Amino acid sequence: MASGGTHSTLGILAGGGNFPVTIAELAKRRGRSVHIVGIQGEADPAIERFPHTWIAWGEVGKLLDALNRAGADELVIIGGVKRPDLKSVRLDMGAIRNLPLLISLTVGGDDTVLKNVVRFFEAKGLRVIGAHDAAPELVVPAGPVGNLVPSEDARRDIARGIEVVKALGKLDVGQAAVVVREHVLAVEAAEGTDRMLERASELRQWGERARGRREGALVKTSKIGQDLRVDMPVIGPRTVERAAAAGLAAIALEAGRVLVADRAEVERLAQEAGLAIFGVTVD
Amino acid sequence: MASGGTHSTLGILAGGGNFPVTIAELAKRRGRSVHIVGIQGEADPAIERFPHTWIAWGEVGKLLDALNRAGADELVIIGGVKRPDLKSVRLDMGAIRNLPLLISLTVGGDDTVLKNVVRFFEAKGLRVIGAHDAAPELVVPAGPVGNLVPSEDARRDIARGIEVVKALGKLDVGQAAVVVREHVLAVEAAEGTDRMLERASELRQWGERARGRREGALVKTSKIGQDLRVDMPVIGPRTVERAAAAGLAAIALEAGRVLVADRAEVERLAQEAGLAIFGVTVD
Repeated sequence: MASGGTHSTLGILAGGGNFPVTIAELAKRRGRSVHIVGIQGEADPAIERFPHTWIAWGEVGKLLDALNRAGADELVIIGGVKRPDLKSVRLDMGAIRNLPLLISLTVGGDDTVLKNVVRFFEAKGLRVIGAHDAAPELVVPAGPVGNLVPSEDARRDIARGIEVVKALGKLDVGQAAVVVREHVLAVEAAEGTDRMLERASELRQWGERARGRREGALVKTSKIGQDLRVDMPVIGPRTVERAAAAGLAAIALEAGRVLVADRAEVERLAQEAGLAIFGVTVD
Repeated sequence: MASGGTHSTLGILAGGGNFPVTIAELAKRRGRSVHIVGIQGEADPAIERFPHTWIAWGEVGKLLDALNRAGADELVIIGGVKRPDLKSVRLDMGAIRNLPLLISLTVGGDDTVLKNVVRFFEAKGLRVIGAHDAAPELVVPAGPVGNLVPSEDARRDIARGIEVVKALGKLDVGQAAVVVREHVLAVEAAEGTDRMLERASELRQWGERARGRREGALVKTSKIGQDLRVDMPVIGPRTVERAAAAGLAAIALEAGRVLVADRAEVERLAQEAGLAIFGVTVD
């Protein structure tokens, strides 16, 4: 959990989406000053409402300087990034000085890269914290998100889904599954939750399962050993839309370990579709 | 394993594909007489090379009579079937007499239906045996299928895949996974092996993993508790083609518990693609 003297500045290294701005807003509301470092071509220009610095991929020196000058001792790394186009990478002196370390980032699987990113910043005296530490409001609570609760049938599907994602999580595979009438329709591995939901949609269209009423659940959790500081599961409006299109009755999310992007919109869409979103505890 | 006095007739209830004819050939080669009952619109006309009877969906009386007259005491149910068009169903007297039993077949999940089918025939004095009992030649042996063996890298992927499908099998989910460089790319649930392989293909196309050389493995096993008499995992030429298209280096199959359709063609395609097929023991 966050310690971070509330008077120190919170650094935010911002990729795409609206999490960076939301986190900045929530931190400010709590009286904390922020400094956002936006990656060009990734971060939303809306970050300019806050003290900010733009950097290109590779401008490591500029990044560290900006955070240093702002007096940041904690850093949140948040928002989606596309793999940088090599032509857009600018290596500044800070990057060149740290080249061996930076090269090590490109080696190994995604998990290794993320671990190395954390290690890099911590070696520079910045404590990397998760979005859930910086802004606990963004995390799925235990219980209903919005005003619908899962039916008894949906709760049975959720229980089955939790069983499956727990078993998979132990093996470091995916983190989500779709269960309809206690039958496991789809399991997520590398394709991501959106594509799994599309598949579930198609499977239900030709199956006899499409009965015109909502049934089944999407279950999504974090993986065991997942570093939530740099790699936290997220759902947002699109997840709700796709779950609704797949005819599901509920979305169950691991309480405390899944972020909700644009929660107001998520709740609105869920309510409109008659789909219950619920935070569950997974031990 | 098969007992079946080799002098009794082997009944074969035939859906689509060439398994029915192959099983008939192998049984005949062993000196056993056969009688094939082909389902119209499903079974291959090639069954007519053997003593046979055609039935429509629902002609239960005709089916039982044919098997009875042929002196069949064992029955193999084999080949794919589409869900029957209700208009093509003809209920004969045998069906009407057995109506309560037949209705029970339409209730419950696929597993329950298959169990009831077995129970139905056994109540009529026919022992239902699996294709693997009737023709052990059709089953994946332990060791190489064809003349290629998996590389050390592929064997690591296979080991990881076995771990995943074992965990899933215990939960009665799917029976296959694709692993590349020990990373689980795709897990099968209700969509089937072909669609999972297509997904693996696409994921590798945009991933950095497509390096122009084969790597990774498809692992396919039976599920714990799966009734191999009526529901045995199968691979065939199409599986090999799709695994090759996904850039995989190996296919690992549970020895003794997966059927190979058109083995000569499977081996030819695997050799051509440079893809190793291997039977593994899964405990």
